[in-house]
Amino acid sequence: MQEILQKIIENIPGAEGAILMGFDGIAVMQATRDASDTDIESVAMEFSFRFIELCKAAESLEMGTITDITVKADGGTLITRVLNEEFFVSVFLADPRHLGRGRWILRTHAVDLAAQL
Amino acid sequence: MQEILQKIIENIPGAEGAILMGFDGIAVMQATRDASDTDIESVAMEFSFRFIELCKAAESLEMGTITDITVKADGGTLITRVLNEEFFVSVFLADPRHLGRGRWILRTHAVDLAAQL
Repeated sequence: MQEILQKIIENIPGAEGAILMGFDGIAVMQATRDASDTDIESVAMEFSFRFIELCKAAESLEMGTITDITVKADGGTLITRVLNEEFFVSVFLADPRHLGRGRWILRTHAVDLAAQL
Repeated sequence: MQEILQKIIENIPGAEGAILMGFDGIAVMQATRDASDTDIESVAMEFSFRFIELCKAAESLEMGTITDITVKADGGTLITRVLNEEFFVSVFLADPRHLGRGRWILRTHAVDLAAQL
């Protein structure tokens, strides 16, 4: 799993860190780019509870299960792929220019992560 | 403003509706594709309060101001552009294939919407 997270950040230009986390805010595993000062665990933890609320909203609207959440802010972008009811994987991008590529890479590797849960 | 919302849905294939809404969940204006049964107002209202929470999370993490939020579910995708502290514009896509184009079109027209607020 560590290898997959490492591959994710290596393959996405501008990715500072990747993390596999439970919706309870507890990190399973993470990978950080060398020399990055992004605390991916704090970021993902802070958003995890909010993501549960988004999932509830989608369900109540009969939009079905949420698969992807992207939050872009001035200081960074968090792209998230929901793996199942319990876990998600998030990547923090300092540079949003490669958002499209990031989403694609994350989706591709999420399949492998989900298979190991 | 109505014209801008109309243009947004006309220029994004698969867009069912577009709405300009306050973070208090009160709709300012909306446009819906003919024959669409998507209740864009209910969708945006349900998410508006959750979006405030995401903004608070980003601020507490010093990620800065959130500019874009994308929520993709099995039954539809909501792309949102934050206009200012009070208002956002959201587009509901039934078909997520044109998500990239949708984000781009939304961003382009959001400037015009923000100028009229």
